[in-house]
Amino acid sequence: MNKKIDTLIMKGKPVSDKIIKVLVSRIERLKKSSGRSPGLAVILVGEDPASQVYVRLKGKMADKIGIETYDYRLSSDVSFQELSDLIEKLNQDSKIDGILVQLPLPSTFDETEILKKVDPLKDVDVFHSENFGKLSLKQPGPKSCTPAGVLEILKFYGFQMEGKNVVIIGRSKIVGLPLSILMLHENATVTICHSRTEKIGEVTKSADILIAAVGRANFVSAEMVKEGAIVVDVGTNRLDDKLVGDCDFASLMGKVSAITPVPGGVGPMTISMLMVNTVNAFENHISVT
Amino acid sequence: MNKKIDTLIMKGKPVSDKIIKVLVSRIERLKKSSGRSPGLAVILVGEDPASQVYVRLKGKMADKIGIETYDYRLSSDVSFQELSDLIEKLNQDSKIDGILVQLPLPSTFDETEILKKVDPLKDVDVFHSENFGKLSLKQPGPKSCTPAGVLEILKFYGFQMEGKNVVIIGRSKIVGLPLSILMLHENATVTICHSRTEKIGEVTKSADILIAAVGRANFVSAEMVKEGAIVVDVGTNRLDDKLVGDCDFASLMGKVSAITPVPGGVGPMTISMLMVNTVNAFENHISVT
Repeated sequence: MNKKIDTLIMKGKPVSDKIIKVLVSRIERLKKSSGRSPGLAVILVGEDPASQVYVRLKGKMADKIGIETYDYRLSSDVSFQELSDLIEKLNQDSKIDGILVQLPLPSTFDETEILKKVDPLKDVDVFHSENFGKLSLKQPGPKSCTPAGVLEILKFYGFQMEGKNVVIIGRSKIVGLPLSILMLHENATVTICHSRTEKIGEVTKSADILIAAVGRANFVSAEMVKEGAIVVDVGTNRLDDKLVGDCDFASLMGKVSAITPVPGGVGPMTISMLMVNTVNAFENHISVT
Repeated sequence: MNKKIDTLIMKGKPVSDKIIKVLVSRIERLKKSSGRSPGLAVILVGEDPASQVYVRLKGKMADKIGIETYDYRLSSDVSFQELSDLIEKLNQDSKIDGILVQLPLPSTFDETEILKKVDPLKDVDVFHSENFGKLSLKQPGPKSCTPAGVLEILKFYGFQMEGKNVVIIGRSKIVGLPLSILMLHENATVTICHSRTEKIGEVTKSADILIAAVGRANFVSAEMVKEGAIVVDVGTNRLDDKLVGDCDFASLMGKVSAITPVPGGVGPMTISMLMVNTVNAFENHISVT
């Protein structure tokens, strides 16, 4: 292949740093006016190692910027009622502004039934149908963390979405689906493809901006992208004890105009946007109490 | 042009008749067990002639199949408070199962603010964010009327959506957006294009199934469709005192394998699906009271 393009590597850190900087001064100001810190409850059920890592990273960032975290580690045999009761208690707790239930829950739980217990005003992950509906209908409310992070990265590096062909691989309720809706709000022409898509390579090749959120290591190869496309890799897959994305990074370098690395691309953004949602929830909460 | 294909005209009436037939016997059964009829409140604010026609058609169908309608005609200078109070009264009214606020409201109203007053359990139009979120997240709840009608037509005429390239022109919260989500649930590969889409003809040409919901008379011409595509025309536009769709019907005949006519295509389906949602709301309502 003729590798002629100087590919821009879109790191998440400078974007995240910029967002966090603004957030820190907002927190300072809101702390002064309210007399307390924002509070984020983090519920982790079971021992999933990846979930433990995510929860630790979220807690670390929260601590760093002045969000109080309240950790609830429950064993995987906790009952539906106990977990519901905990969420209800946190809904009522005036020092808690955001409630994060780390997914996946152990398979014995009906996730939807648990997630709808969370007060929509404290649902910083946008898992509640009320918030998802507001996002879809462009009403005020929190934006799904990873999708919001993807938009921030693209904007930071100067890419416009209006009128562009944006192709999203994956239709999960955490990434693909809400991202497709946010992209529509940015006036992109949006295509969502997934496991049942026929000739997926032809579809992805039509993308000016390609977002991979499929969860398969190195799924997107050079033949699947248009020369000069912009690629955002949302995947984090473990391959031979290494973290890799959904895109075959090495083969895309030199063919696309920009790409996010894994790790160090979208990952840090998800956490930053969770912090943004928590501080927004805090601000709304103190304005009504 | 070489008109070689024998285009199937997908009329809505046989589909609608089939759905209504099933509905009539459901209503009979539910009436017996509950001792009352389903009740649909219809609120029309102002004198918009098209809205008057729609409201009359909906009322006529409801009467025909045994749904009681309760009509509220308000003058366009009704206050926000009065309209809210009426909706609140209907929310509390045990004989009302569905509340329909005919859109558009006069421009003095904030539609979102009014629509969120409707109890989600009585929101038969799926305008409430709670219901829109449930639809998006594939949770149990009502399906947007026109999009659900489009799926019913395609299924009735034997067309599968799984793996197909479905292109939707238009991203309204009543048609384009919810339809794109329902099509994803059918495992289609979905593209949404709109007024900001560049080279829209290239995008629509990739469609195996093309849905036009753009609101511009004869917008879709033969050059914009692939030979053998399936076309659903959701548009109803007035042109020289005639009702025409978003597709240039005459020029598409002989090029596409199937197309819905306007009038007589999707139109009857929207009303039927509204009836389905009303009866579902009735069934849920009597099961909890």
